[in-house]
Amino acid sequence: MTTPAISPLAPAAFPALPAVGGVTFATAEAGIKYRGRTDVLLMVFDKGTEVAGVFTRSKCPSAPVDWCKAALANGRARALLVNSGNANAFTGKRGRETVRLSAALVAETLGCRPRDVLLASTGVIGEPLDPEKFRHVLADTAARLADGPWIAPAQAIMTTDTFPKGVSRGVRLGDAEVTINGIAKGAGMIAPDMATMLSFVVTDAAIAAPVLQALLSRSVRDSFNAITVDSDTSTSDTLLLFATGAAADAPRIDNPRDRRLAPFRAALDQVLLDLAQQVVRDGEGARKFVEVSVRGAVSKPSARRIALSIANSPLVKTAIAGEDANWGRVVMAVGKAGEPADRDRLAIWFGDLRLAHRGERDPAYDEAAAGAYMKGSEIVVTVDIGLGKGADRVWTCDLTKEYVAINGDYRT
Amino acid sequence: MTTPAISPLAPAAFPALPAVGGVTFATAEAGIKYRGRTDVLLMVFDKGTEVAGVFTRSKCPSAPVDWCKAALANGRARALLVNSGNANAFTGKRGRETVRLSAALVAETLGCRPRDVLLASTGVIGEPLDPEKFRHVLADTAARLADGPWIAPAQAIMTTDTFPKGVSRGVRLGDAEVTINGIAKGAGMIAPDMATMLSFVVTDAAIAAPVLQALLSRSVRDSFNAITVDSDTSTSDTLLLFATGAAADAPRIDNPRDRRLAPFRAALDQVLLDLAQQVVRDGEGARKFVEVSVRGAVSKPSARRIALSIANSPLVKTAIAGEDANWGRVVMAVGKAGEPADRDRLAIWFGDLRLAHRGERDPAYDEAAAGAYMKGSEIVVTVDIGLGKGADRVWTCDLTKEYVAINGDYRT
Repeated sequence: MTTPAISPLAPAAFPALPAVGGVTFATAEAGIKYRGRTDVLLMVFDKGTEVAGVFTRSKCPSAPVDWCKAALANGRARALLVNSGNANAFTGKRGRETVRLSAALVAETLGCRPRDVLLASTGVIGEPLDPEKFRHVLADTAARLADGPWIAPAQAIMTTDTFPKGVSRGVRLGDAEVTINGIAKGAGMIAPDMATMLSFVVTDAAIAAPVLQALLSRSVRDSFNAITVDSDTSTSDTLLLFATGAAADAPRIDNPRDRRLAPFRAALDQVLLDLAQQVVRDGEGARKFVEVSVRGAVSKPSARRIALSIANSPLVKTAIAGEDANWGRVVMAVGKAGEPADRDRLAIWFGDLRLAHRGERDPAYDEAAAGAYMKGSEIVVTVDIGLGKGADRVWTCDLTKEYVAINGDYRT
Repeated sequence: MTTPAISPLAPAAFPALPAVGGVTFATAEAGIKYRGRTDVLLMVFDKGTEVAGVFTRSKCPSAPVDWCKAALANGRARALLVNSGNANAFTGKRGRETVRLSAALVAETLGCRPRDVLLASTGVIGEPLDPEKFRHVLADTAARLADGPWIAPAQAIMTTDTFPKGVSRGVRLGDAEVTINGIAKGAGMIAPDMATMLSFVVTDAAIAAPVLQALLSRSVRDSFNAITVDSDTSTSDTLLLFATGAAADAPRIDNPRDRRLAPFRAALDQVLLDLAQQVVRDGEGARKFVEVSVRGAVSKPSARRIALSIANSPLVKTAIAGEDANWGRVVMAVGKAGEPADRDRLAIWFGDLRLAHRGERDPAYDEAAAGAYMKGSEIVVTVDIGLGKGADRVWTCDLTKEYVAINGDYRT
């Protein structure tokens, strides 16, 4: 497989991420699958760090997902071990043994309890993951812990991602200035298996685990749960939010209704949305970043389902790849969503151009203007269902021949 | 757009279809969109012909679909008018006017009631369809009515189909020999819009409309409703079943539980399944015909939903295109289906080769044998969920770069 070029939708550069008090990290080359690049990330957190997480809804989750779900009952974290190149998914009893041994190895190295160690893996499915790979590098990795640069962990967790993904926000929490740093790896598919979305977000705020969980579960709805590349759900999706409490003067928040949380909540929303959109920008073969905005639906959940029906439609996505303002396929995707819709009230815009109105082609439709708009790399599709006040947005990318090549050609 | 080659999955030849008593037809070149080929089909039925239909579940159906649904209340049919090149979908008030005028034109030409005229259109969405196109050809077409050859109607309704689709079965009904002939056009996408599945089935049996409807609604479940090319649902899907009653000595059946129906029901199932599979074999860019068989689910509907999750997964379909026995992606698609599944009980076969067993790679997995199997053009994926007795099957095709080219490149 040739190394993919950087996605044309990638940000110009990895952003500057400041150090976050209470967390250090190092990466290593364990040779799990890749050669000549890092594939292991060890993050170490100060005592007292609390943690929350959300995971894939797959009924066939990976062994590390099962491990993290159990460990989160604890609400505490001292370390995070991540590897790329092998997902440790559908590996049966051996997979469960691998996560147990991996957590024990980290705990032994750092002097903490295994249940305070979170784990994530991304890569091939169905291949046993040998925990000895970790043993060989852990002591050396733990000896190199530092508080930067943050691009290193973002790189170590990449699979077929074409660029490392990170974001940082500073925000006031009570009288303290706190930082939220996040990294993610995205929907680049990894031969011979599927994508995994992993994201790790760290703040030096002091927030109780149940409050973190409430913040995360709410914020993920309009960020990581509002993106789709190809409608396929990984066995391994993992998003963890750590709060070290190391920021000077940071108040400990243990009530989710604490009013001081409002700016933090907004900053967390921005961090997750930024990371989620970076994942879309690195979708396999993507050349167009697409926002699908639905309004006038009977409810917000109905608007979400219609938006996802459009965003997941192969015919809509191939039309966008072909720079074709094919609003007829948007009508089709609205019609198949199974949600209340009235053909004769529908209106559809591509960008600011209204193409369809009251159930037929807009009389003012200008094919040349629509064609010019479709040549851009950022496309906004807006649909007004005309029935109610429900509105929602999701983000996706186009479906190109490169997607098929990345996911179908690597063995031929 | 270059004319597509014939699908490599096409049958060797159009089958021999005998005449069916009580129906005649002719085709015409109305120049609706195509040049140098037929694009209009007129079928005329003897008095007393009864009819049943099933239609797209889209909430944005085409004007002809709305017309047919209303006309079916009648249960009688004297004529069917079909055009390719324009779907008359999302055409607002003008679309409704077009179907009204088209039915009136046919009724006037043949001397029947407009409500005894069924209509179907397939092609571009959102373009007004001019009923004058029909007026120009109807009288001449009606003067050329004949009882064969059946390939002509199958050709006139094609859009980007690469081969005409037809099938015939003879079967005993009481003391009579009756015939069931069917034609279909499939999921070849039509620039600049989506596929429409149209199928018209005619028998010379004498069966009351409510019984026809019961037969059709049941039979479609495991045929046309068990296929998927790309998970996108047309605004125009239409399947009509006509019974002319012209067969000598055919008993009139007006009770759906009439025991004499059993062989007819089986023959109808065969006709619909054959046509539905021909549609898959002409899926855009398809190079592999794929059966997905699920067993061991908690129920038959659960098995169907899991099978469709596999058959609609872009990652599974691109892997098959790449001749990759990627059972990990099958695990993924089972996991995302939202149906009861236990990772550690799953077993997966490609053909007769068991690749995964009890939640991990089969110890006897032979990559060379699996790779050789995937080079074939007919692929069977079997999944045992290991929980119950629910079983079902669906059919699909692979997802190739040609699919993206057909649906994305035609304007570039």
